[in-house]
Amino acid sequence: MKVISSEELGRRIEITPEQIRKDLASFGQFGKKGVGYYVAELQQNISNILGLNRHWKIVIIGVGHLGAALANYHNFINLGFNLVALFDNNPAIIGKTINNVQVLGMDKLEMAIKSLGIDIGIIAVPRLEAQKVADRLVASHVKGIWNFAPIRLRVPKHVHMVNEDLSVGLSSLSYHITNAFG
Amino acid sequence: MKVISSEELGRRIEITPEQIRKDLASFGQFGKKGVGYYVAELQQNISNILGLNRHWKIVIIGVGHLGAALANYHNFINLGFNLVALFDNNPAIIGKTINNVQVLGMDKLEMAIKSLGIDIGIIAVPRLEAQKVADRLVASHVKGIWNFAPIRLRVPKHVHMVNEDLSVGLSSLSYHITNAFG
Repeated sequence: MKVISSEELGRRIEITPEQIRKDLASFGQFGKKGVGYYVAELQQNISNILGLNRHWKIVIIGVGHLGAALANYHNFINLGFNLVALFDNNPAIIGKTINNVQVLGMDKLEMAIKSLGIDIGIIAVPRLEAQKVADRLVASHVKGIWNFAPIRLRVPKHVHMVNEDLSVGLSSLSYHITNAFG
Repeated sequence: MKVISSEELGRRIEITPEQIRKDLASFGQFGKKGVGYYVAELQQNISNILGLNRHWKIVIIGVGHLGAALANYHNFINLGFNLVALFDNNPAIIGKTINNVQVLGMDKLEMAIKSLGIDIGIIAVPRLEAQKVADRLVASHVKGIWNFAPIRLRVPKHVHMVNEDLSVGLSSLSYHITNAFG
């Protein structure tokens, strides 16, 4: 497909065509009136807007079930995220590899982040260890943190943080079921 | 704390006080002008709105790293979600328990869902198995599905589905870093 209309886009992702046109227009003049969007051009533009037109180097801290699941998430690479290292303090898994990426000891964290030029740290440690890990990531000059620990972390304003809060998804489901079934 | 202002709420969750007042007002008359919100009453009202004032019975299908991580997620119970069973087709883990919940074989799925009165199925199986599992959940009359497989699933309109898409969090981080660092 070379061209797609906002109607067809809207149908596929369940958003109104008006909203799609409005959202995209706020980033520039992409579509062609009465024709639609050139697909390749639209993909490139969205990549540029989201900063997905480059490679980000990422590490995961904490290789429990969640960290291991994230290390095996194959979409990372499609989005331009290169998983460079994993960190844990469990001697039983230090030195192993998951998805071809090595698990390093926590004592190597600062050295590895600086020497490898890591952009983003993913926190998958238990709740009460998360702030300490965030502090070490900040001190090592990462640009962003993706936090999976169910706790609100404090980081300086220049470090960008996204909290992945699983209770949001479940509450949203609960809300929709409740309002349909009473 | 007995009372909280929209200013203080806004400061804590980084949303403008105006937005908080507007959002809450769309569900009813909660706050008291010039005073704020009574905390206990606000919590109760939000629980009611989200349908978190009752217990939902949930199961997880797929006990790989992700399923195991979800089974250990302690916030479920705080939100009123009771994890009742886990399902997998790997004979090596069928019969084991995670977080006091037993892993059953996939052949028990329909029977267990109906006899235990399961409300919500959480899909944590590989991408290409996800639609088949969704079909079986629908046929067993669950009310909602929480999908972690990175694929768009088709379910009838009366079954509510929330897709947990990890690429959203990572793209959001990429966007913010790009627009700050250029």
